[in-house]
Amino acid sequence: MRVNQIGEFALIAGLKRHFKLDASVKKGIGDDCAVIDFHAGRYLLLTCDMLLEGVDFRRGEDLRLVGRKALGCSISDIAACGGKPRYALVSLGLPPGFRTRDADRLYKGIAALASQFGVNIVGGDTSRSSRLIIDVSMLGIVEKKRLVLRNGARPGDIIFVSGALGGSIRGKHLTFKPRVSEARFLVEHYKVNAMIDISDGLLQDLDHILTQSRAGACIFKELIPRAPEAKSFREAACMGEDFELLFTMGRREAERLCRNLRYRFFPIGEVTPEKTGLRLLDEKARLLDTRRLKGYRHF
Amino acid sequence: MRVNQIGEFALIAGLKRHFKLDASVKKGIGDDCAVIDFHAGRYLLLTCDMLLEGVDFRRGEDLRLVGRKALGCSISDIAACGGKPRYALVSLGLPPGFRTRDADRLYKGIAALASQFGVNIVGGDTSRSSRLIIDVSMLGIVEKKRLVLRNGARPGDIIFVSGALGGSIRGKHLTFKPRVSEARFLVEHYKVNAMIDISDGLLQDLDHILTQSRAGACIFKELIPRAPEAKSFREAACMGEDFELLFTMGRREAERLCRNLRYRFFPIGEVTPEKTGLRLLDEKARLLDTRRLKGYRHF
Repeated sequence: MRVNQIGEFALIAGLKRHFKLDASVKKGIGDDCAVIDFHAGRYLLLTCDMLLEGVDFRRGEDLRLVGRKALGCSISDIAACGGKPRYALVSLGLPPGFRTRDADRLYKGIAALASQFGVNIVGGDTSRSSRLIIDVSMLGIVEKKRLVLRNGARPGDIIFVSGALGGSIRGKHLTFKPRVSEARFLVEHYKVNAMIDISDGLLQDLDHILTQSRAGACIFKELIPRAPEAKSFREAACMGEDFELLFTMGRREAERLCRNLRYRFFPIGEVTPEKTGLRLLDEKARLLDTRRLKGYRHF
Repeated sequence: MRVNQIGEFALIAGLKRHFKLDASVKKGIGDDCAVIDFHAGRYLLLTCDMLLEGVDFRRGEDLRLVGRKALGCSISDIAACGGKPRYALVSLGLPPGFRTRDADRLYKGIAALASQFGVNIVGGDTSRSSRLIIDVSMLGIVEKKRLVLRNGARPGDIIFVSGALGGSIRGKHLTFKPRVSEARFLVEHYKVNAMIDISDGLLQDLDHILTQSRAGACIFKELIPRAPEAKSFREAACMGEDFELLFTMGRREAERLCRNLRYRFFPIGEVTPEKTGLRLLDEKARLLDTRRLKGYRHF
């Protein structure tokens, strides 16, 4: 068997069984961040994201934006757990003929976003590579009571997204703003049951929440906010790299959230018992087929 | 200018200036690990190492050993700061046709070493790549009073290595055992002034200690322990990837260390004032030219 036959998620599940974890690991592989119980009041959050030329960005792309994206992906993962990003390591694979001016541009993009979000770039590694590689690993913190994972969604919860979806390939995948302020607002003022950032596409990331929460969902096509850049509903539902938050909370909390004047969140449906699976309904409450609406797959 | 013209160290120095650090960062870019002051009694140590097919290992190499090496490099960095390795993230770039059996072998190698050193593999990322990429980032801890950096060497210190050097390309670069027990023995029982792990070659890594400590050194060719695999003195002095510890301590501590029965360490010379630079003497105390004895350069 080859990795492109079994796919990323089966690969990860298969690999996970090799590793034993001690009691200090509250959550290992399988969420936006690993969660480590190291300190009386706060958890450490660890995450990493590898960006490759030709896969995650094109050769010739503005390297400031590439640097920005590399850091932004990890910041978004920390936000999805309700945490604050704090420290990052940046590993670079650089072609020997890479211009130092370009390396500077890459680092300026990283530095600008780091400064905006209070992230310290504390180290890294550089290697010779045929194509540009950027791997960012990040350490964040979250107060124990404010941690949110993917596995807490409960039937009856309302499902929200933090912004318009789709068409990210036409720019937003490089310029998105990680939703740290929004996530912190949520965890500081509301009881959020499950949260993820939308990197693989709405339906696929919702499926991660549902699988880990052993729940189903009913979402409404008309309620899914579509970005002006999205050319179709399919793009809004599947394209990925929106880096918006997708989260669930109980109905009463949801009603309270809808009355807040600080941020706008978009209710798109409801969590249901596991046996109903994921259902997508159109404006006339007709069931749409989601089987053809696949998200991003690495393999 | 291109990165292969200015070299890795100038590149890193140039990039470092973009980043601002807050007061919680005790040490940023420029040591084996970043050091974060997060907790009353202990520092967090962060490090990462990227291994690339064709650079750090060959295609067709035993993937168990490749996995072992990927984790071992970071464990060695944590040891060099006197710390204990605890948590790791593993990012993989995999060719789409990579066999799942090979991915399993790679992970078995990682898991075996992780288990041996009490490291929890808590997460990672997988991407599609034309060549195999393994980037490991690691979180360790060290009691504040036991932290050792590169910058504490003082004239009069004795310089030690923890084992025989050279010829690592003929096997040891894949099978080395990170010197965590030795490093912990040192920091628990002695006052170590400066330490580094030998990844770029003895002379180059000693130069890192000397530059950061603003010191010189006098070392003796005949005292440098040469591995049976080393084909020449040049290989022992320059080849790199030995992953032995190189450290300095005051003369009295050094005498005490030489009497210990638990581990053997090899004194190779003495730290001197900065103005004398790095001097290498042969068995007749003649000065040897070190200019041709360069260590490993990524670019």
